[in-house]
Amino acid sequence: MDNLGIVFLSELVGTAMLVLLGCGVVANVALAKNKGFNGGFLMVNFGWGLAVFAGVIVAYASGAHLNPAVTLGLVANGATEFGNPAFGTGVPVDVVSVLTYIGAQLLGAFLGAVVAWLAYKQHFDAEPEPANKLGVFSTGPAIRSYGWNLVTEIIGTFVLVFVVIGFGRQGDASGLASLGALPVALLVIGIGASLGGPTGYAINPARDLGPRIAHAILPIRGKGGSDWSYSWVPVVGPIIGGLLAGWVAIPLLPLLG
Amino acid sequence: MDNLGIVFLSELVGTAMLVLLGCGVVANVALAKNKGFNGGFLMVNFGWGLAVFAGVIVAYASGAHLNPAVTLGLVANGATEFGNPAFGTGVPVDVVSVLTYIGAQLLGAFLGAVVAWLAYKQHFDAEPEPANKLGVFSTGPAIRSYGWNLVTEIIGTFVLVFVVIGFGRQGDASGLASLGALPVALLVIGIGASLGGPTGYAINPARDLGPRIAHAILPIRGKGGSDWSYSWVPVVGPIIGGLLAGWVAIPLLPLLG
Amino acid sequence: MDNLGIVFLSELVGTAMLVLLGCGVVANVALAKNKGFNGGFLMVNFGWGLAVFAGVIVAYASGAHLNPAVTLGLVANGATEFGNPAFGTGVPVDVVSVLTYIGAQLLGAFLGAVVAWLAYKQHFDAEPEPANKLGVFSTGPAIRSYGWNLVTEIIGTFVLVFVVIGFGRQGDASGLASLGALPVALLVIGIGASLGGPTGYAINPARDLGPRIAHAILPIRGKGGSDWSYSWVPVVGPIIGGLLAGWVAIPLLPLLG
Amino acid sequence: MDNLGIVFLSELVGTAMLVLLGCGVVANVALAKNKGFNGGFLMVNFGWGLAVFAGVIVAYASGAHLNPAVTLGLVANGATEFGNPAFGTGVPVDVVSVLTYIGAQLLGAFLGAVVAWLAYKQHFDAEPEPANKLGVFSTGPAIRSYGWNLVTEIIGTFVLVFVVIGFGRQGDASGLASLGALPVALLVIGIGASLGGPTGYAINPARDLGPRIAHAILPIRGKGGSDWSYSWVPVVGPIIGGLLAGWVAIPLLPLLG
Repeated sequence: MDNLGIVFLSELVGTAMLVLLGCGVVANVALAKNKGFNGGFLMVNFGWGLAVFAGVIVAYASGAHLNPAVTLGLVANGATEFGNPAFGTGVPVDVVSVLTYIGAQLLGAFLGAVVAWLAYKQHFDAEPEPANKLGVFSTGPAIRSYGWNLVTEIIGTFVLVFVVIGFGRQGDASGLASLGALPVALLVIGIGASLGGPTGYAINPARDLGPRIAHAILPIRGKGGSDWSYSWVPVVGPIIGGLLAGWVAIPLLPLLG
Repeated sequence: MDNLGIVFLSELVGTAMLVLLGCGVVANVALAKNKGFNGGFLMVNFGWGLAVFAGVIVAYASGAHLNPAVTLGLVANGATEFGNPAFGTGVPVDVVSVLTYIGAQLLGAFLGAVVAWLAYKQHFDAEPEPANKLGVFSTGPAIRSYGWNLVTEIIGTFVLVFVVIGFGRQGDASGLASLGALPVALLVIGIGASLGGPTGYAINPARDLGPRIAHAILPIRGKGGSDWSYSWVPVVGPIIGGLLAGWVAIPLLPLLG
Repeated sequence: MDNLGIVFLSELVGTAMLVLLGCGVVANVALAKNKGFNGGFLMVNFGWGLAVFAGVIVAYASGAHLNPAVTLGLVANGATEFGNPAFGTGVPVDVVSVLTYIGAQLLGAFLGAVVAWLAYKQHFDAEPEPANKLGVFSTGPAIRSYGWNLVTEIIGTFVLVFVVIGFGRQGDASGLASLGALPVALLVIGIGASLGGPTGYAINPARDLGPRIAHAILPIRGKGGSDWSYSWVPVVGPIIGGLLAGWVAIPLLPLLG
Repeated sequence: MDNLGIVFLSELVGTAMLVLLGCGVVANVALAKNKGFNGGFLMVNFGWGLAVFAGVIVAYASGAHLNPAVTLGLVANGATEFGNPAFGTGVPVDVVSVLTYIGAQLLGAFLGAVVAWLAYKQHFDAEPEPANKLGVFSTGPAIRSYGWNLVTEIIGTFVLVFVVIGFGRQGDASGLASLGALPVALLVIGIGASLGGPTGYAINPARDLGPRIAHAILPIRGKGGSDWSYSWVPVVGPIIGGLLAGWVAIPLLPLLG
């Protein structure tokens, strides 16, 4: 398999793992009769954070972006084939590779959501409220206002990508490299707890759009609409936030290690 | 003691530790008058995850499978005596060693459950509901449907074994090796939060069957039946999930590091 | 940029990150209609701890004090330009550098609070209770009594600075160095859980005063007063606690590694 | 200062830190009007676990036992001055050093409880129920039965000391050494969640007896009795559990790394 093939498979498997576990924890907390029903927001934060942990581990070969906002943020930050280890080894940074990353992430997120639906099939059937079913797949605003929802997603994704760039800079010097996938998992737990209140922290276009497509396609009993009118917010917001983080980080790189 | 004897003792002690702490946290949350009563699902997730942490540490010599689905998944993945460190050093991968692993895991799980019962003896006596008593020992479905319950257990165990194989591949390169028993503990916390809703995440035949036998044998006051009609699901599901993960991981190994 | 310029920017960015995520988690838990509403005190502890984690990572260049009590405690402990790595490399320990640290921390905390307000703008508008709005920005006492509130803040900050000095001493010998920003994050989670009950654990003058100024200036709908009569407690208490820790640690340094 | 003097001071400071933060989290959760009131059992588990984390860091010089059951368990396991790093470097393992460890632990626990009382002074005054005040200082049984309470404490302490001996054995080989004080903190979180239901997991004679003496002596408003009739259980149980773990671990050491 060539390098781009490995990237595609790696991002696909990693994002599927991320979304399976991430959508899974929401299903556990939100759908009727689950053992974790009403388990609390902190449990959702841990579920998504550890979903990132598992996803990063199985997508080692591609640098485990698992998120178009991360891919684009790294490009904006100046990632190059040899100058930045954030892309997989030997993978050029160009339009083709970027599209390979993003395509694999979207497809992986779609597949992960399908498997999450299978794992919770009976609880989807038992749940009376359509909004709770959509909530397992995709995010939605606590108070709908596209402008402010966008602001929240931009800020959350900025934090994610900016700190992730810091991880990459520091390597062994700060000890972070010896923690493997743990720092990014902790970061996502923290972003969820701290910035997840208004919009449910998509902070990842693939994580939101892939499952939303799955929700639209799958024969989910008693499902309502897929809220397409909101769907652009968790795509556009994270992309803006990721690009901003990549650009802002350039002059600030000396701070990061 | 020869290598197989060490493997037997190591898996027995490690699985007993795992099940003592794992059944213990359920007892704390589910049985009347406990200080942790109604402590929430996230507390159960942490309890089981840290049970794995302690169990893995004390079963260092055998590679700390503590789970027949892990043992069989590693075999399916192609573990060999010298080519894969997942079995204890100098332990051949054959029918005898596999049976040694699994037998020790089952016996250890049985013994761990007995000790958990002793630690919570008075709370078993004070608890009026038989189902809560069985729930300390073994898992049961939130909505009974053998087919879908099996699907959930297969998916959960697939995630466990697939990511564990990733841990073994990456070693020092990704920093994971320097985290010792921590990554698998975090993984189990995450699987519990994300995929534990429908069936209580056995994801380990020994963890479920050993304590169920203990429940059947022990003189627990006011206990009901041991729900043998469900007992095959948390045995067969995890075995299928583990084998699948081992096989699927073979062509995907280049992704894992 | 000279060393002091890097210190200024590093502390500013790091403290802004800390306060954005820290105030954010309080907003999520305390303001109406948030997805994390009533998420519990442990969630607030994790939010602040992981806020420290992110802030420390992005302020690597300056040693990531992010807190005037830490800066002053390190000075009291005898930090010198070359004898102690707690200040940024090549940064002299004198009045100018100390004021640079503290000024950047205050300004960063102010800016972080502004961004947190933007992220939660609609929830500030939807929240009826002015005290909950102020609570997002600054701490307040559960039972008002300036003397005892001061005692609690002194004790909490003493623990923070004393243990942080221990981190710096131990380096690789104890394994702590290989955990990067994680130990201080865990420490802050622990101090919050254990000593945060009476005053909400400011333990950092910048974290409290910067956001209080933001609260006073920002056009927050329906805000009440900024409780200036209490505002000196979370400034003076942490300064006393930090200096005490720095001094007490000197004869105890042989214990710390 | 000679080696024994350092051991004394180190264990005193470390155990004081442990008990300050440990009693603190109980005060936060149990005493009226605290911000963490009714924060849940998992929060108490994290509070005590991170209390161990902080205590271990500041007692680096003496090996950070902080617990007579650990000291005695290491002796039972065969600790010697040069053969086992679990005692401080250059400290002989004899009656004098063991008494130095235990005396410092008791005194430190007493002092830590005094400081915790100061930090929560107003909440002790505001709390109407005497049993909640004693509960901040010392453990008590959920269902009183000295025999079974003893069994629970023996099992919990056995797990603590047995796994701690495993930590010491494995060193760098398993990656645990590079986690510093983290594994023992996680272990204590796990033991609390899993075995803390019936007795509140003293698992440490000094942690229970030192604060109980403080409770008896301090002028706490409206305090009731110090429950001396139960006080021997959390002393004798942990000592038995620690010694048992030390002895049982000897033939099992090959399992541990």
